Amino acid sequence: MTTPAGFYEKHRELLDKAIEAASTRDYWSAYPESPSKSVYGEDAAPAGERAFQALLGQQFPIEVPGAAGTVTTERSPYGIALDVSYPRADPADLVAAARAALPGWRAVGPQGRAGVAAEILQRLNARIFELAHAVQHTTGQAFVMAFQAGGAHAQDRGLEAVAVALAESTRIPATTTWSKPQRGGDPLRLAKTSTVVGRGVALLIGCNTFPTWNGYPGLFASLVTGNAVIVKPHPGAVLPLAITVQVAREVLAEAGLDPNVVTLAVEEPGDGIAATLATHRDVRIVDFTGSSEFGNWLEANARQAVVYTEKAGLNTVIVDSTDDYKGLLRNLAFSLSLYSGQMCTTPQNLLVPSTGIETDAGHRSAEEFGADLSAALDKLLGDPKRAAGTLGAIVNDGVLARLTEAGNAPHVIHPSTAVSDEQYPDATIRTPVVLRLDAADEKSYTREWFGPVSFVITTESTRHSLALFTETVRHHGALTASVYSTSPEVLAAAREAALDAGVHLSENLTGGVFVNQTAAFSDLHGTPANPAATASLSDAQFVTGRYFTLQSRHHVTEESNA
Amino acid sequence: MTTPAGFYEKHRELLDKAIEAASTRDYWSAYPESPSKSVYGEDAAPAGERAFQALLGQQFPIEVPGAAGTVTTERSPYGIALDVSYPRADPADLVAAARAALPGWRAVGPQGRAGVAAEILQRLNARIFELAHAVQHTTGQAFVMAFQAGGAHAQDRGLEAVAVALAESTRIPATTTWSKPQRGGDPLRLAKTSTVVGRGVALLIGCNTFPTWNGYPGLFASLVTGNAVIVKPHPGAVLPLAITVQVAREVLAEAGLDPNVVTLAVEEPGDGIAATLATHRDVRIVDFTGSSEFGNWLEANARQAVVYTEKAGLNTVIVDSTDDYKGLLRNLAFSLSLYSGQMCTTPQNLLVPSTGIETDAGHRSAEEFGADLSAALDKLLGDPKRAAGTLGAIVNDGVLARLTEAGNAPHVIHPSTAVSDEQYPDATIRTPVVLRLDAADEKSYTREWFGPVSFVITTESTRHSLALFTETVRHHGALTASVYSTSPEVLAAAREAALDAGVHLSENLTGGVFVNQTAAFSDLHGTPANPAATASLSDAQFVTGRYFTLQSRHHVTEESNA
Repeated sequence: MTTPAGFYEKHRELLDKAIEAASTRDYWSAYPESPSKSVYGEDAAPAGERAFQALLGQQFPIEVPGAAGTVTTERSPYGIALDVSYPRADPADLVAAARAALPGWRAVGPQGRAGVAAEILQRLNARIFELAHAVQHTTGQAFVMAFQAGGAHAQDRGLEAVAVALAESTRIPATTTWSKPQRGGDPLRLAKTSTVVGRGVALLIGCNTFPTWNGYPGLFASLVTGNAVIVKPHPGAVLPLAITVQVAREVLAEAGLDPNVVTLAVEEPGDGIAATLATHRDVRIVDFTGSSEFGNWLEANARQAVVYTEKAGLNTVIVDSTDDYKGLLRNLAFSLSLYSGQMCTTPQNLLVPSTGIETDAGHRSAEEFGADLSAALDKLLGDPKRAAGTLGAIVNDGVLARLTEAGNAPHVIHPSTAVSDEQYPDATIRTPVVLRLDAADEKSYTREWFGPVSFVITTESTRHSLALFTETVRHHGALTASVYSTSPEVLAAAREAALDAGVHLSENLTGGVFVNQTAAFSDLHGTPANPAATASLSDAQFVTGRYFTLQSRHHVTEESNA
Repeated sequence: MTTPAGFYEKHRELLDKAIEAASTRDYWSAYPESPSKSVYGEDAAPAGERAFQALLGQQFPIEVPGAAGTVTTERSPYGIALDVSYPRADPADLVAAARAALPGWRAVGPQGRAGVAAEILQRLNARIFELAHAVQHTTGQAFVMAFQAGGAHAQDRGLEAVAVALAESTRIPATTTWSKPQRGGDPLRLAKTSTVVGRGVALLIGCNTFPTWNGYPGLFASLVTGNAVIVKPHPGAVLPLAITVQVAREVLAEAGLDPNVVTLAVEEPGDGIAATLATHRDVRIVDFTGSSEFGNWLEANARQAVVYTEKAGLNTVIVDSTDDYKGLLRNLAFSLSLYSGQMCTTPQNLLVPSTGIETDAGHRSAEEFGADLSAALDKLLGDPKRAAGTLGAIVNDGVLARLTEAGNAPHVIHPSTAVSDEQYPDATIRTPVVLRLDAADEKSYTREWFGPVSFVITTESTRHSLALFTETVRHHGALTASVYSTSPEVLAAAREAALDAGVHLSENLTGGVFVNQTAAFSDLHGTPANPAATASLSDAQFVTGRYFTLQSRHHVTEESNA
C-alpha cells in the first residue's frame, strides 16, 4: 500500500513541472507521443496488442456497485469482432456508492488527490499500446492517431487538468494566522483553516470519437478537487474508459481508499442513464462532449449541477491571400482528411471571396481554389495505405448518412470515395466530400455536418467573409477558426472578429501545425465565449466550479498555535 | 488625462500588495477603518458632512443614457429628509450604452482596467465621510459602522476583488512562444497571443443594508475582467451607489474611455427593472444580494447569465460548553445587537442542549443560559447612547413587522424595546428580541427572520445540535456558523459538520472578533456550498466565470517574433 501522500511525493516533481508548464505555456509534454521502441521499449507494442486481444469476447473485469446483468454494445469501425461485455449499471446504486466514497476522499486533501491522479496517469501511460488499440477499434482512429490523441495527448490533457486543479484549489493556504493590530492592546489573533470540499458526485459523459482525450480533463479535474466521478462512456466507445476506470480503482484501492471514488456506468443504447444520472439531485457536476442537442438539454435540465459541455459548431476558415499557396492547400487538405473530419475541430466552412484570392502562384478564382483544394486532397489521399493512416475509419452510421446526403447535393467539388485497407478488409473508410456553396445558402452551412463534409462558400469580399464568420460563429458556435492572409490589416481584422465571435484563431498555418490540433499546457481547447461549449480545456474556470473552500477560525494567544 | 496604463503604474505597488495579501491571507487593509483626524486629516469629517448635506433635496448630478424623468425613493431610518432625485432609467438604453462601451474597455487589458479600478477606489476613499453619511441615512447603520463597513471595509472588499480578478485573468500570459522539437528538423515554432474578453454586460443589483460592502466585489470583479456594469441600487439605498457610479464615470472619462462602462439604473419601487435587466439577452452576468425569493428567481430565470447571489439562511450557533462564559455572553450579545441583527451574518438559531452547558461559572441550564444572554443584552444596551451606536436604526418596515410578530410570540426571553437617540429624535431604534423554542418548532426556526430576532433552541444534546445544524443548513443555507465548546472532540465534530453542511465556522469567539464580521484578504464571505449563496467573496470562482481567454497563434521562424 502507498498512501495518497506517498503518491504525491512520488510524483511531486512531475506535478510541479506540470503546474509550471501550464503557467508558462511553452511546449511541454509528460507522455511521449512516439510509439517507437526506443521510447516505450522493445516489448511494449506486442504486449499491448496481446493485452487488447485478451479482452475481446470476454467479460471486462471490473466491479460496479449494484450492477445487474451485462451489456455488449461496441463494434469496431475496422470491422473486427469486439464482443466485450460490461456490467450493466444501476444509476441509483452508482450515486449512492459515489456519495459514500466522498468523505474519505475529501479527507485526503488536494495534494494527496493529485498524487493519486498522477499515479493513475502513469499506469494509463504504461498501458498506452493497449489503450491505443481500444481507442482505434471503438472510434475508428488510425492506430498512430489513437496512440497519440487517445493515448499520450489525452494523458497530457489529463495531467494538465490535474495541474490546474491542484494549483487553483491550493491558492488559499490550508492554514494561516491573522493578526490585526489594536490600538493600545494586544493584536487580535486568529488561526484559520481552509478546506477544499468537492461539490459532490460528478458525472462524466464520454463521446464516441475521443473518449479519453475529451474525457480525461473533466475526470481528473473533478477528482483532484475532491469529487467522486461516475464515468458513463458512449455505448460505442466503452473500452478505453473502462480500462481507465479499472486503473483508477486499482490505484485508489492500493492507497487504502474507497475505489467507488471512480465508477463505471455502462448501458444498453436507449437506457438513457446519462439523462437519469445528470438530473439526479446528488449529481453536482456534469462533463459532456457530444451533440449540441443533448448538450443543450443538459445545460437546461441538469440545474442542480455545474455543466461543462463541448458541443458542435461551425469551424470556419477565412481565405484571403497567401504567400505559400502550396502550403495552404497541403495544410487544409490534411485538416479536412485527418480522422475523416470526425474531430470537433475540423474546418467545415471555408469562406472565399468571389473575386478570388492573391497567392504566390498568382491570382486564383474561387472556382480555381476549389479545384486546387480537390487536387490537394487527391494528392494527399492518392495512396490507399497512406490514406487509411490519415483518414481512419468512419465511426458510425450517422456520419456515413451525412456523407451520403452531402454527396448527393449539387456542386460537389471533391466527391467522397471508398478506400480499402489491407489489414482490415471490412473497415469503412471514405475520403472527404467538399461542396461549393454561396453565402446565401446559409440553410446548408449553418448546421454542423459532423464528419468529412466541408463547404467552399463564396462571399462578396474578405470583409464580407469576416462579417459572416462573426455572425455565424456568434450564433451557432465554433471550436476552431483560421485565417489565411498576407495583409496585416486583414489579420488584425480577423483577430478582432475572432474576439467578437468568441473563438480561438489560427493564422496562416501552412506547415506542420493544423487548426484541428491543440497542444496541452499551451493551447486552450474550446471556449464558453460561443455556443459550442461552456468550458475551455483547461483553464481556471474549468476547475473552480468543482469545489468550495470552507474556512474555520479560532483565537490564538501569542504562545499557542493550536 | 491619465491613461489606464498610467493609472496602473500609479497603483501598481498597491495592486501587487493586494495580490500578495489575498494569497497569504494574513491581516491586511488598504483603507484605514478609523475615522480619526490623525488618519484622514482635520477637515475630512466636516467636509464630508458638508458634501453629504449639499446632496439633500437636489437632483443627483449624474448622466444616465436614455433616462427620462426623475425618481425619489429613499427615506432615512434616522428620520431626516433626504429627497435626492435621480434620473429614471430605461433598461434597453442602458444595455445598449453598456454594449457600445465594451470594445474600448476590452482593448484596455487587465492591467489597465485594474489601474482604473484602483483609481476609482482611491477616490471613493477620499470621499469616505460623505459615503459614510450616505450609507448611514439609507441603511440605518450607525455612523461609525457606516464609515467602516460601508466605507473602508467595502473599499477593501472592492480592492480584494480587483486583486483576485487581476491575478486570475493574467495567469495565462498575454504572449508566449511555443517550440516543439521535431525529429530530424527544425522545431515547430508558434507565437501565441491570449486575450481576456469579458462576458459582456454585467448587472449589479444592490441591497438595502450593505449597498457598498456587498456591491463592490461584483462591481470591481466584473470591471477588471472586461465587462461593462449596470448598477441597479435598491430603491431604499441609492445614494451610496450613485456616488460610486459618479466616481467611476469620472475616472473612466479622465482615462479617455467611454464612461458608460459603468451606469446607474434607478427605478420607482415596482418598476421591476432588476428582473427586466437580469433576463435581457445581452446581460451576461448578474450579481445580487438580497432575499432568497428573488435570488432563487434570478438563478432560475436569468439563464443567459452567470448569476452570483447572496441570499438568506439560518445562521447557527452551537453552544456546548465554555471556559469563558462572560466572554461568550458578551460576544454573542454584541453579535445579536450589531446593526440590529440586520446583517446577513447575524446568528439566528442558538442551539443549546436541554441538559444545559458546562462553563467556568458552573453548570448553566438551558433556561439559565437564556436568562444570562438576556441580561448580557441589557448590560450591552443599557446606556441609550451606546445602544444607539451599536444598534443603528431599523432599515425598513419589513424588519419592524417581523420584530413585532416575534415579540407577540410566546416564550420571549428578551423583549424588544425602543431606544431614543439624542441626535435623531425620529430614528427607529429597537433592541433585539430573543425567543425560546424547542427543536420540534422547526416551522419557526427554519425560515430566516431577517432583523433582530433570534431563537434559543433546546436540543436533546450537543450531538443532536450538530445533527440539526447540518440538516437545517444543508437545506436552508447559512452565511455563518459558530460553536462554543471546551471539548476537542466536539470541536472536531463541529468542523466536520460544518464541512458537511457547507458553511464557514467560527470557534469559541469570546473576544473582539464576531461571527458576523469577515475580514477582506483573509476570510471568505459566503459560499456556494449551501443554498444561501452561489459565490464566495472573493475567491477564484467568483471571478473566473466573468471572462474568457481567447487565443490566436501563428508560425514564427527562429529570427522573427512578430
